[in-house]
Amino acid sequence: MRTLDGIGSTPRSGVGAARWYRPDADLTLPDRPDPESVDVDAELERYEAARDAVREALRDARDRTAERVGEDEAAVFEAHEGFLDDPTMIDDVEAAIRDGTPAAHAVADRFDEAVAQFEGMEGRMAERADDLRDVRDRLLRALLVGTGDADATSDSDSGESPGSVAARSPADLAALPEGTVLLAERLTPSDTAALDPDAVAGIATVEGGRTSHAAIIARSLAIPAVVGVGADLESIAAGETLLVDGEAGTVVVDPDEERRAAALESGPDAIRERVETADGRPVEVAANVGGEAELAPAAERGADGIGLFRTEFLFVDREAAPTEDEQFEAVAAALSAFPDDRVVVRTLDVGGDKPVPYLDLPDEPNPFLGRRGIRLSLDEHADLFETQVRALLRAAATDHGDGLAVMFPLVTRVEEVERAVATVESVAADLADEGVAHAVPALGAMVETPAAAFLADALADRLDFLSVGTNDLAQYVMAADRGNDAVADHHDPLHPAVLRALDRTTAAVEGCDAWVGMCGEMAGDPALTDLLLGLGFDELSMSAVTVPDVKRRVREVDADAARSLATDALACETRAEVLDVLGLDERGA
Amino acid sequence: MRTLDGIGSTPRSGVGAARWYRPDADLTLPDRPDPESVDVDAELERYEAARDAVREALRDARDRTAERVGEDEAAVFEAHEGFLDDPTMIDDVEAAIRDGTPAAHAVADRFDEAVAQFEGMEGRMAERADDLRDVRDRLLRALLVGTGDADATSDSDSGESPGSVAARSPADLAALPEGTVLLAERLTPSDTAALDPDAVAGIATVEGGRTSHAAIIARSLAIPAVVGVGADLESIAAGETLLVDGEAGTVVVDPDEERRAAALESGPDAIRERVETADGRPVEVAANVGGEAELAPAAERGADGIGLFRTEFLFVDREAAPTEDEQFEAVAAALSAFPDDRVVVRTLDVGGDKPVPYLDLPDEPNPFLGRRGIRLSLDEHADLFETQVRALLRAAATDHGDGLAVMFPLVTRVEEVERAVATVESVAADLADEGVAHAVPALGAMVETPAAAFLADALADRLDFLSVGTNDLAQYVMAADRGNDAVADHHDPLHPAVLRALDRTTAAVEGCDAWVGMCGEMAGDPALTDLLLGLGFDELSMSAVTVPDVKRRVREVDADAARSLATDALACETRAEVLDVLGLDERGA
Repeated sequence: MRTLDGIGSTPRSGVGAARWYRPDADLTLPDRPDPESVDVDAELERYEAARDAVREALRDARDRTAERVGEDEAAVFEAHEGFLDDPTMIDDVEAAIRDGTPAAHAVADRFDEAVAQFEGMEGRMAERADDLRDVRDRLLRALLVGTGDADATSDSDSGESPGSVAARSPADLAALPEGTVLLAERLTPSDTAALDPDAVAGIATVEGGRTSHAAIIARSLAIPAVVGVGADLESIAAGETLLVDGEAGTVVVDPDEERRAAALESGPDAIRERVETADGRPVEVAANVGGEAELAPAAERGADGIGLFRTEFLFVDREAAPTEDEQFEAVAAALSAFPDDRVVVRTLDVGGDKPVPYLDLPDEPNPFLGRRGIRLSLDEHADLFETQVRALLRAAATDHGDGLAVMFPLVTRVEEVERAVATVESVAADLADEGVAHAVPALGAMVETPAAAFLADALADRLDFLSVGTNDLAQYVMAADRGNDAVADHHDPLHPAVLRALDRTTAAVEGCDAWVGMCGEMAGDPALTDLLLGLGFDELSMSAVTVPDVKRRVREVDADAARSLATDALACETRAEVLDVLGLDERGA
Repeated sequence: MRTLDGIGSTPRSGVGAARWYRPDADLTLPDRPDPESVDVDAELERYEAARDAVREALRDARDRTAERVGEDEAAVFEAHEGFLDDPTMIDDVEAAIRDGTPAAHAVADRFDEAVAQFEGMEGRMAERADDLRDVRDRLLRALLVGTGDADATSDSDSGESPGSVAARSPADLAALPEGTVLLAERLTPSDTAALDPDAVAGIATVEGGRTSHAAIIARSLAIPAVVGVGADLESIAAGETLLVDGEAGTVVVDPDEERRAAALESGPDAIRERVETADGRPVEVAANVGGEAELAPAAERGADGIGLFRTEFLFVDREAAPTEDEQFEAVAAALSAFPDDRVVVRTLDVGGDKPVPYLDLPDEPNPFLGRRGIRLSLDEHADLFETQVRALLRAAATDHGDGLAVMFPLVTRVEEVERAVATVESVAADLADEGVAHAVPALGAMVETPAAAFLADALADRLDFLSVGTNDLAQYVMAADRGNDAVADHHDPLHPAVLRALDRTTAAVEGCDAWVGMCGEMAGDPALTDLLLGLGFDELSMSAVTVPDVKRRVREVDADAARSLATDALACETRAEVLDVLGLDERGA
């Protein structure tokens, strides 16, 4: 038994057989030809064709990832498209081609230069180098092998350990045998999104950080992962038995029975019943769902209902808004999938980074500080809002409609809630006049702006519940665009100011009849469960994959200890102090 | 004595002789010619030439206004340039010209259509119609009279009451005789920016709202103003004696001696000594200064020093960053202008809406949530920051250097303050090594993000003072871009959430040695002075023009009553309730 240390990335454990993934072997460039001999026009065309192919592949990857993993995780492929179509990059590559460099060499030169620049930066910026590599490799495959799909033909999977070429491409990655521990120099987001979480028992990489897009996707897929192990990892031969412990950040070679048993115990089995803390406080652990395909997996993972049903999937990728009936059917399907549970539907939340062409949204200098969420629903798109409310009130009158709850996004003013509630009431009156079956569901607001946190008492007085969206809340508290890598270090849900905004919210709701939940990314990290329960959250909603881990953690929480932990965290002045209080190493959280 | 009611806009009073301003008389369009007879190419060229002339005039107006009034007020002319160069507008006008409409008619048609659209909107959007009219009139003057400077020649100023044409153009407006009360259908921002506040005793308009750009500029110039009086105003003849009471929102025709005396008493005389509240609490009333030209006027108005010395003027409109010596000279000049007072210098605050070409700032999807303020100074522009700190430490060692204080913009993390302080210390050590005279000034942070408000205790522990910037703070608390008219209603410093963020800040500083001030727009409104002192602010810094009014108000404040007022305001849940507590009508504040 030998132990290698790395950085724990997905905080769970798995045991399996080592298998090396060495995709770079495909991408050896031919020798550089004499510039005079290069057909410049043909190479320019090949470069453009390659970009077209890669763009199409990226969009497929985006859609696949959105379906399999989640919308947030899929966004990385939009960033990749940004690298692909960056005008400066294109200019530089085309200039090099015009100087007699073949397209593949020009791409490799320019991307390697950009990769080196990113690697020279601090913090999370450095991890964006992985994304650039992913795009570079796709382009090179398209130019050298002729496909933008990053599918290289694998000509051997016999073990030339440690340099064995076991699984060269995402196509192979999707078909790994059960019980594989995948080893690699590094994994790209595409590589990771292709993995089958039922087959892959773990991932360990030589390089990489906890906040890379690949690591985030692995976490969403709940695949145990340790990154940044270093060159020692190369000493592992294909076929060796490994225990990947993403909690401890270790890779154990040939683990003994005791270690294996411990690892298996923390497996991902769903806990189907509702859970409570060790001292008996019930906590709802729900799933965030962004489409009908995610309903069954959420139920399988043991979610106690849906804490965030995003309705945007009904509106995007189409020519016109969905009809009232389409929306009714979708919500009714969600209610049927969780017949005894609560289903919290968020009304349409477009604007900001969620454009929908036919809605003719304004082009704004700071879209995240512009027309978004409830603002559009009460104004430009009052008609769409009314249609959606009609569908929701009808769904509330179906067999399982009792469980329906509806919440409004990006609330900053009490008047907005009052106007939204007035719309609900007037729609109810219309439906009554028309003799259409309907009911008024529980109503709530998202707390995702500092204004909503400061006014949580007033909101809770008027509503049945509040639900905190930590991604947006952290963005506004910290004045840091959650999609802008250049301020990724500032966009930090564990920053004391964000914790104090959470506390302001939960403290304001204490003593009200309203309940308060969280449906942001933070809710799905079991390392933060104690803190969040200590802050007073009644419900946590997350990616379905993390539901079992969070349920398991909830059962171990002592409510008094959690409260005292929260008090200590609120007294902190820096992220480092918060991590210290939580007993965590530096990690993306 | 006859009284007309309107909306009080600039809350002060003045007495003078009525004079009508009817600029529209110049802009009568000739009859429409037969489309066949129109020289399309010539008209397209004339349209383009007119736009070029107007663009230049707008930039001049911007610079003049920035110098005379302030940077914030000058920003309206950038918005005007946006209307001028709006691609849709240009396309539509050009299409009409191609169909045989002369340029002037095409401009009038298209702008009138847009004006009507804006007027149909709710709230502050409707007031943007004034801005469109301003641009339309400039274009029409350029096309009909041949100048983009909105200078129409005035051919008569004899009184054809009530339709007299007393002062047709901004050129005339700048030279009105002392003691004029200017009457108009409405005033554009350009009109208003041209007025001489020493000559104009008041403004009264038939239309207009309190939050139009023209009203804001009038307030900054401290010209008594009543807007939205309605058609009754037309009954006033040129030469009649008027009292414009911007507090009461009335225009009194032929006021009696008592009313006149009351009005004169509240005149704008500077109070040169420091002031305290009625019950003896000292309050510092300082000026915001954005350039050396503003130093003398600030001193003349009786400012107790400078609460915000913006250093951006040293960096914009040039090819390269200023040298250390240039910066030293500018700060030394500010210290000399206020030899016995405090001068708070904000370190370079670019990014967001303040681009500087040679700094090569990133192009970001949400610049207000990106690389701004201290973030750039600690990273990309650490070299510029170090140079600035050197200049500041040298200035602190000059004759009046004792009064120097330095503050850092857009702080969100304690670590940023620690790194900035470390830079100050290392620069001090360098200067000591070099034998250069220097001293370490008082250090502070801007509180303009929710994070800084939530961490005010931690910041106050490490610094000598905090200063709240309400424009940015309200923007982040409310998730509403302060430059985006479409969310102007959300960007509201009197929203209870913003007041609670202010309270969070001042409460955290209570009991610390640090003092806490405000240098946002809110600080200059005497109607809010009681509230702000009740919240616990030790210092208020504002446009120099409002210093006398705020000083006068401070002297009337009872600290206990102010505290109780603040408590009531903090318990409010809507802006309307806050206004009610403050005894104010709906107004822009």
